[in-house]
Amino acid sequence: MTRYLLEHFAVMFSAATGALAARGKSVDLFGVVVLGMVTAVGGGTLRDVLLDVPVFWIRDSSYIVWGVTASLLSFVVARYTLPPRNTLAVIDAFGLALVTMLGTAKTLQHGHAAAVCVVLGVTSGVAGGILRDVLSGEIPLVFRTNIYLYATAAMCGSLVFLGVSHLQPGQPANLLIGAGVVLALRLAALKWRLHLPEFRTPE
Amino acid sequence: MTRYLLEHFAVMFSAATGALAARGKSVDLFGVVVLGMVTAVGGGTLRDVLLDVPVFWIRDSSYIVWGVTASLLSFVVARYTLPPRNTLAVIDAFGLALVTMLGTAKTLQHGHAAAVCVVLGVTSGVAGGILRDVLSGEIPLVFRTNIYLYATAAMCGSLVFLGVSHLQPGQPANLLIGAGVVLALRLAALKWRLHLPEFRTPE
Amino acid sequence: MTRYLLEHFAVMFSAATGALAARGKSVDLFGVVVLGMVTAVGGGTLRDVLLDVPVFWIRDSSYIVWGVTASLLSFVVARYTLPPRNTLAVIDAFGLALVTMLGTAKTLQHGHAAAVCVVLGVTSGVAGGILRDVLSGEIPLVFRTNIYLYATAAMCGSLVFLGVSHLQPGQPANLLIGAGVVLALRLAALKWRLHLPEFRTPE
Repeated sequence: MTRYLLEHFAVMFSAATGALAARGKSVDLFGVVVLGMVTAVGGGTLRDVLLDVPVFWIRDSSYIVWGVTASLLSFVVARYTLPPRNTLAVIDAFGLALVTMLGTAKTLQHGHAAAVCVVLGVTSGVAGGILRDVLSGEIPLVFRTNIYLYATAAMCGSLVFLGVSHLQPGQPANLLIGAGVVLALRLAALKWRLHLPEFRTPE
Repeated sequence: MTRYLLEHFAVMFSAATGALAARGKSVDLFGVVVLGMVTAVGGGTLRDVLLDVPVFWIRDSSYIVWGVTASLLSFVVARYTLPPRNTLAVIDAFGLALVTMLGTAKTLQHGHAAAVCVVLGVTSGVAGGILRDVLSGEIPLVFRTNIYLYATAAMCGSLVFLGVSHLQPGQPANLLIGAGVVLALRLAALKWRLHLPEFRTPE
Repeated sequence: MTRYLLEHFAVMFSAATGALAARGKSVDLFGVVVLGMVTAVGGGTLRDVLLDVPVFWIRDSSYIVWGVTASLLSFVVARYTLPPRNTLAVIDAFGLALVTMLGTAKTLQHGHAAAVCVVLGVTSGVAGGILRDVLSGEIPLVFRTNIYLYATAAMCGSLVFLGVSHLQPGQPANLLIGAGVVLALRLAALKWRLHLPEFRTPE
């Protein structure tokens, strides 16, 4: 039940970031919805295909309805208001936190090793945004220099979730604890511009 | 039977657009065939993976033979003749119409909700072209400003097909009616440069 | 057994090329590992999803451990030494040879037609590198003009492997013969800058 609700929230947050990413790209209304949906369901779809379980939005079409609604709503809101500067990054942080947790939890539930849970959790968390960036012709956010602990935050949250799930298996609160870790790390990194050392090589 | 034939036509049309998209890109002969095949089977492959059914060209390798043949033929024809200006867009419209219908019909046949049928139909219809564009380093056609009702035409055809399939289930003519709608909308949009309102935001 | 070992080598070689491709891109440490892993498991993952068999690194998480280790090692080595000019291309040739052979062999083992084996072999061989290039914002290597028989070498090796497997089925040596063909062709093409005729069209 918690998972079902969180998955809907995850889809709606991610759809909003996809639609907002269309700003200044001269994309038409349909393109906005497509970008929104790709971002919203991309990560979870990849997760389900890799786990070889039925794809969540194919089994339950309500995800499509909510994703499209959130995309259209973001389109309208962004057209008539000027959102504060960091809105996209903050909404994106919520989406990242939720999708990563759901990916980790679903993989764990199918009985896979901890390393697989973390990899699939982080992958599903960042895949939607990567697809959004590749499709709108940008360098994926994850690989940009100023991206302040993006996938790293997802990985830490995923590990914390696995830890608390080991201590108290199946508690819905575990998902929220893990999501909180991702969110806290990501927002802190955005605020204080924390980042990992860069990959520099001798010329 | 109709489906089997249409699927072969869809692969050949899409292969031709993929091969033609290699024009002016200094791609070698093998790259032309790869681009042709990716465009030809990309959409249907994504459809089959998401539906969790055997991938069509893995079960029946004749699709590979026809796709490669169409790619090579387009390569030769484009090398020795100068096709009229809109050739690529018109062939692409035929490919889009057929692949969208086959995607919608196959999803419907597996008993999924109407919203899922439309999403998978449109997704498979546009995925091949998106892959072609991403791989050849272009902004995907679907998101370009001058793209005149591309995915929107696919969606309308998909909806019309679902409507007539509700009235007279299983008629092969339904596929042709839906494909006709996509084709008519797309060609009309190309001719009169129709488009949806763009996503403009206050600066 | 041979297959198991070769698959680990393939993952490690490919991970190294992914990590090295991050040079001069101002990617952080995590991005290096992500690029390494995507390159390392991308091709095999696509192969397993298309064949509808369990994804190899989900079933056996040791591939994740080795891939991450190889990525980190390459990062450290590349940071403190200046590798010779062609290192990336040569390691990439080893990765291409192994991944192509494993893809062809696994498809053959599942009883598919020869054309399907070749297509899946070449696809899995080149997919990891294509993903790496798309994610790091480059035109995929396969489509670059100076790419000297990349996918073509994979295809020849795949065909030779199918030929010798027909004569002496199930010999582990077959894999090595096929991989040797890919490697020889690719290295020869790099050395003498061999290439297929380009796709030029009348302007």
